[in-house]
Amino acid sequence: MMTNINELPLDIAAIEVDAPDLIKVSAKSRSTAVAGAIAGVIRQYDFAEVQAIGAGAVNQAVKALAIARGYLERDALDIVCMPYYTEVDIDGNERTAVRFRVESRAL
Amino acid sequence: MMTNINELPLDIAAIEVDAPDLIKVSAKSRSTAVAGAIAGVIRQYDFAEVQAIGAGAVNQAVKALAIARGYLERDALDIVCMPYYTEVDIDGNERTAVRFRVESRAL
Repeated sequence: MMTNINELPLDIAAIEVDAPDLIKVSAKSRSTAVAGAIAGVIRQYDFAEVQAIGAGAVNQAVKALAIARGYLERDALDIVCMPYYTEVDIDGNERTAVRFRVESRAL
Repeated sequence: MMTNINELPLDIAAIEVDAPDLIKVSAKSRSTAVAGAIAGVIRQYDFAEVQAIGAGAVNQAVKALAIARGYLERDALDIVCMPYYTEVDIDGNERTAVRFRVESRAL
């Protein structure tokens, strides 16, 4: 039996629409700007996804995560992160990216 | 009134002796070796501290954390990390290090 996508419960579509954007970090990203983005997404969604490709970008992402913890203190929130690898397509080339799954946790 | 350190309860000394060593990561560290060290410390202590100075070292530390998550799956454990900055003395020079507080969490 095939599943007709139009017969799926409506709330599945709602969940997908409400997912936060992936926060992409480069070696040139300002860490305070990225930290602000992370803090904003955490306040709204309680979780965030941060992606970095290359050592310089990973370093900026980690700096941003450390700074975002300070920003979220005033909201009585801390964040924890779980790094993992994923393959991504950049202009037709497969690259290994580091992603951080970031979750909020009460202080 | 002064506290005589010799009169402190014995279990304070026991706690200090039982803290895990800081895991220091350099840009040249093998990420699988560091991952093994992290997994070993987590199994024994439920938490670990990882230190990296410089973008190359931070990148190796993050790789090691991602790999350690795989190693700990067989123990039904995951890890979460909380990055923070700290100033450290390297040969008389003050350097900014990134430290990761790493905690275990049930899968």
